[in-house]
Amino acid sequence: MSYSGHPLDPLTPAEISAAATIVRSTFAGQNLNFRVITLKEPPKNEMLTFLEHGHLSDYTISRPIRCARVEILAKNDSDANELFEIHVDLGKESIIKQQHLKGKHSYIDSSYMKEVEVACMGNEEVKSQIRSLDLPLGASVIVEPWAYATDGMSDMSQRITMCWFYLRLSEHLDANYYAYPLDICAEVSETLEVTKVYRLPSSTNERIHDEIRSFDRRKIYPSTASEYHPDLRPNPRNSTRPLQVVQPEGPSFKISGNEVDWEKWTFRVGFNYREGLTLHDVRYDGRSLFYRLSLAEMFVPYGDPRKPYPRKAAFDLGNDGAGINANNLQLGCDCLGSIKYFDGWHNTQSGEPMKLPNVVCCHEQDDGILWKHTNFRTGNAVVTRSRILVLQTIITVSNYEYIFAFHFGQDASISYEVRATGILSTVPIHFGEKNTVPYGTIVAPGVLAPYHQHLFCLRIDAAIDGHQNSVLIEESEPMPFGDPDVHNPFGNGYTSKSHFVEREGGFDLDFTKNRTFKFVNEKKINPITNTPVGFKLLPSYSQMLLSHPESFHAKRSEYGKHAVWVTKYRDDELFPSGRHTMQSMGGEGIASAIQHRTGSGEESSVRNADVVVWHTFGSTHNPRIEDWPVMPCEKMMVGLKPVNFFSGNPGLDVAVSTQDVNKSVLVCGDGGDEPSHCGRI
Amino acid sequence: MSYSGHPLDPLTPAEISAAATIVRSTFAGQNLNFRVITLKEPPKNEMLTFLEHGHLSDYTISRPIRCARVEILAKNDSDANELFEIHVDLGKESIIKQQHLKGKHSYIDSSYMKEVEVACMGNEEVKSQIRSLDLPLGASVIVEPWAYATDGMSDMSQRITMCWFYLRLSEHLDANYYAYPLDICAEVSETLEVTKVYRLPSSTNERIHDEIRSFDRRKIYPSTASEYHPDLRPNPRNSTRPLQVVQPEGPSFKISGNEVDWEKWTFRVGFNYREGLTLHDVRYDGRSLFYRLSLAEMFVPYGDPRKPYPRKAAFDLGNDGAGINANNLQLGCDCLGSIKYFDGWHNTQSGEPMKLPNVVCCHEQDDGILWKHTNFRTGNAVVTRSRILVLQTIITVSNYEYIFAFHFGQDASISYEVRATGILSTVPIHFGEKNTVPYGTIVAPGVLAPYHQHLFCLRIDAAIDGHQNSVLIEESEPMPFGDPDVHNPFGNGYTSKSHFVEREGGFDLDFTKNRTFKFVNEKKINPITNTPVGFKLLPSYSQMLLSHPESFHAKRSEYGKHAVWVTKYRDDELFPSGRHTMQSMGGEGIASAIQHRTGSGEESSVRNADVVVWHTFGSTHNPRIEDWPVMPCEKMMVGLKPVNFFSGNPGLDVAVSTQDVNKSVLVCGDGGDEPSHCGRI
Repeated sequence: MSYSGHPLDPLTPAEISAAATIVRSTFAGQNLNFRVITLKEPPKNEMLTFLEHGHLSDYTISRPIRCARVEILAKNDSDANELFEIHVDLGKESIIKQQHLKGKHSYIDSSYMKEVEVACMGNEEVKSQIRSLDLPLGASVIVEPWAYATDGMSDMSQRITMCWFYLRLSEHLDANYYAYPLDICAEVSETLEVTKVYRLPSSTNERIHDEIRSFDRRKIYPSTASEYHPDLRPNPRNSTRPLQVVQPEGPSFKISGNEVDWEKWTFRVGFNYREGLTLHDVRYDGRSLFYRLSLAEMFVPYGDPRKPYPRKAAFDLGNDGAGINANNLQLGCDCLGSIKYFDGWHNTQSGEPMKLPNVVCCHEQDDGILWKHTNFRTGNAVVTRSRILVLQTIITVSNYEYIFAFHFGQDASISYEVRATGILSTVPIHFGEKNTVPYGTIVAPGVLAPYHQHLFCLRIDAAIDGHQNSVLIEESEPMPFGDPDVHNPFGNGYTSKSHFVEREGGFDLDFTKNRTFKFVNEKKINPITNTPVGFKLLPSYSQMLLSHPESFHAKRSEYGKHAVWVTKYRDDELFPSGRHTMQSMGGEGIASAIQHRTGSGEESSVRNADVVVWHTFGSTHNPRIEDWPVMPCEKMMVGLKPVNFFSGNPGLDVAVSTQDVNKSVLVCGDGGDEPSHCGRI
Repeated sequence: MSYSGHPLDPLTPAEISAAATIVRSTFAGQNLNFRVITLKEPPKNEMLTFLEHGHLSDYTISRPIRCARVEILAKNDSDANELFEIHVDLGKESIIKQQHLKGKHSYIDSSYMKEVEVACMGNEEVKSQIRSLDLPLGASVIVEPWAYATDGMSDMSQRITMCWFYLRLSEHLDANYYAYPLDICAEVSETLEVTKVYRLPSSTNERIHDEIRSFDRRKIYPSTASEYHPDLRPNPRNSTRPLQVVQPEGPSFKISGNEVDWEKWTFRVGFNYREGLTLHDVRYDGRSLFYRLSLAEMFVPYGDPRKPYPRKAAFDLGNDGAGINANNLQLGCDCLGSIKYFDGWHNTQSGEPMKLPNVVCCHEQDDGILWKHTNFRTGNAVVTRSRILVLQTIITVSNYEYIFAFHFGQDASISYEVRATGILSTVPIHFGEKNTVPYGTIVAPGVLAPYHQHLFCLRIDAAIDGHQNSVLIEESEPMPFGDPDVHNPFGNGYTSKSHFVEREGGFDLDFTKNRTFKFVNEKKINPITNTPVGFKLLPSYSQMLLSHPESFHAKRSEYGKHAVWVTKYRDDELFPSGRHTMQSMGGEGIASAIQHRTGSGEESSVRNADVVVWHTFGSTHNPRIEDWPVMPCEKMMVGLKPVNFFSGNPGLDVAVSTQDVNKSVLVCGDGGDEPSHCGRI
């Protein structure tokens, strides 16, 4: 089949079907579980040729082959699932690569997890343990399966699922079961056998207490304070008056397929099961800025050292997928204003296309003032409001929600905002315990919310005015004072010093030096400033991974060690903890890749090269009780801003703001000398 | 006269007049220049008694005296201006304190500055220098007077004004003269004598070039790219469609005089000539959080070491005043939606009340999602949007604008946002020079924008559930790995460790340790978490002052050395660089105050004390050409968030979002398999 759209468009439903058909014919007679059927993005060198011509509107030439990347689990005679990766040339309808991924595991499969739950609840030992808890009538036990975070205690060649148990006290199906963690735990094998059932450490004593066999009923402390669902939390505050966003002439964006055109910005929207929203070929006023922007990974290790809690460490992209867990966004709830939604496409286990509706929303927001100046001599003020374009996606990963949004500014800046919300992952704690556990917060009687980190990695494939870029590290430092060779007679002098990153590696932030990472094109000199054109990273200052460097957590995540990584672009090097994170053993991440290349002599300069910058950021989340029972968004923000890229303020031509257009409302008159009263009664 | 309002209300116009009348009668026969007539806020101990009763709605008891703080310049026989501070008891209509502030200078007086300009332009040497420049016909020379930043080179007992010269090339009165800096400079004395005229360093050579006597005409490089006024930049982009905020039922706030009541928040709005907007008695759900929040100072030192540029270092509050320079905010331009404005009152030089209209705006904004959770078992999503209340003020200080806004959240958080915009302060540079000046950016031919810093200080007078608070410094740190005495078998364990600040002092940030500053009430223990109730500071990570510790800049600013200062509350200790910053000699700031108290034995514990936390933050602003000719806002954000203060998410009761209320608009249909086209044509 042929595809006439853009080579970076996600696979169409027809292409997903076609790829499955081709794979099925090759694996005829085997029981196949299609895990992934997604676009294998064309090699960059082919894309660059295409884009060069494509931006001249001639899409017929230099078209890269259209390729699907397929992952299947094939059930062989021994009843074990074997993972294969297959590349399908959709044009020629043929397989061009087939690889048995021995020892690798695919992402978490929600239907398998459902089977795990059923297996758990049907297990006699589990049933016996539950009976021993003497639970209240009408309460339901909920099993929450989690991927097993490698800890060196089990054979990782097959999948093991950790099952945590909670109680849904109410009949209401949306009652918050995380409010009632039970102190039992089970392990379930790939073949759905319950292999272990044991009790969790329920006291501050740091070992598992096998001797505690009877559940402490006082732990069940029913409280509407632990509910978030409006049915269970009646009488919401009624003081918040409606606020609506109106765009009488419609939005300012123009969308054609996956291409977005807004306020001099153009870019293409991508979407896949793993990264969710991706952005491609990002340009401002026709000039290339970024080849690809994506959230590349996310790691959530828990800090509770007691067994089995070290097994709680989720790769929310690699193990779960930001795409397949993306919410179906709702008009007027997740997004306000005039909204365009994008659908995603995934596949069923049997290889049929599966629509993921409304996984990305696109809308504009007012963002306060863009620029203002009042000439104090004339009293004349000129003020321009800032409009931003928001591309938002929201994912649910078990208990947590993450809201990811790219914000495009009229000043040619991009911000990437992450909001963490949802429900804390909880574990039981003895009811009588005071908060003496130094790695958790008691958020309700008997409920401990353990400390954990959220470490995100934003992958920035820079293309600043072309694809040969360099990374410059700049610091601002005082000039010497009292040095006869330096003219700094009053001690106020300071300068910026910078050096290029020459080799791949990981780097740290230092706000005390105003350390700034710039992506520049050394070959393109700004004729006015006489410096290379560039963009800079506005990082999110975050604590890096707290796990010990020798721990499995550190070895498996790797990118959590430094805030900024610089690599030379390689096709398919998209994931800083490796492609297969499920029960990974470590050594597959960005640090290992760099080390391998250094060791093998493959290493090459990152000066005037196709560089990729990876920014690690996040939060050390030591829960507050205010995060309970549902967490107000914690915001993190990363920025990308032009530095001597243009010839002036790129938003200078945005029209000045006028009341005629903006139609604001004066709600209270001038109170003059006397107190004024206004607003709601 | 008696005042029946709240003791923290700013002075009324009648009170300003009354205070002036009382002062005039005492200084009868002298030529008075009234610089300040403002509320002297009551001593806190009196206020606490009042607030205790006031919150029981009985304002008649325990009323502190109503006092005006007046600053006058009195012209004595020797024709020199002497500065006096006078406290007037408005109730008894009598003076209760009168102090001659010998050697101190008042803030910059715009009418005096106008006189300085006139003196400059009338001076023969200045005129001769201007003639020698052979300027284009029709161009106007603009004199920009600046306060002299103490550098040890001049007698500071009288004011000296530095005069910078620019050219307004166009007839248009709002043409950007900062685009054409001239290389002459003049100094003007208190008595309006032009004492010195000299040339500025106009090349990268670091000394003043007296030998360059003829202006390089090539420096005048007329360019519409240097203009920001819409008259001079025709043809704005027309792609930005209108976006309006509509609140059909009106705003959610209720305002009574200076008291604001919104979404469980109550606080009082204050305003004075120096700090501009201040907030008082900030409570959530009736519980006390902050006694007073204010921007306390702002310092803008320039990094160019060449004489006379070390004299460019502005205290924008102490020397200029955020109140008297506050913009008259315009509906639909500076603020969008349903707006309430507050006026401020100042005084004329002759002591009459002077209205500063619309200096503060109050309005609501949608702030995206407040919290969300989707129960993946039921697929039911509950989403609540976040509404914030914004209290905004904008100031113009010569070339720059600052937008200051407090954001109140429904989750009981407060954010303080600063946006820097306006026009870079420029100096001339030889046209032929390439950008080899290591302390500036060439933003247009012949125009250098020197490096500088903006250092803000937010004063946080905490009152967390009462007025006896402590400051806790918490860090997150890995547990030892391999230590047989510590149970951390997998190396994932981490804990938080904290210690109280015992003594007044300055402290630094360290994101690598997740160092967190908390204000807690040790006497109020959260019954669930079993920890003291508290709030935490979300700092803005910023480079501190780059000037050498022995420089006048450092000695005069003091607060720029550390990011967090903790002091014990003292009435009138409001300014971290001292009350009188104009040509100050140093040693009057927060570090000196602490050192003095330590030395004199006055020092006392800040445990369970009335503590004040001062947060220094800002930006090392090495200009980009994108900041020219008017700078897109650079945003900085500081946050205050509850930590185990409440018994759960304070925004849990905010009503869930519905399309019925929010009335969003689907602008583009679902494109299905085929590319969709939507938005503007």
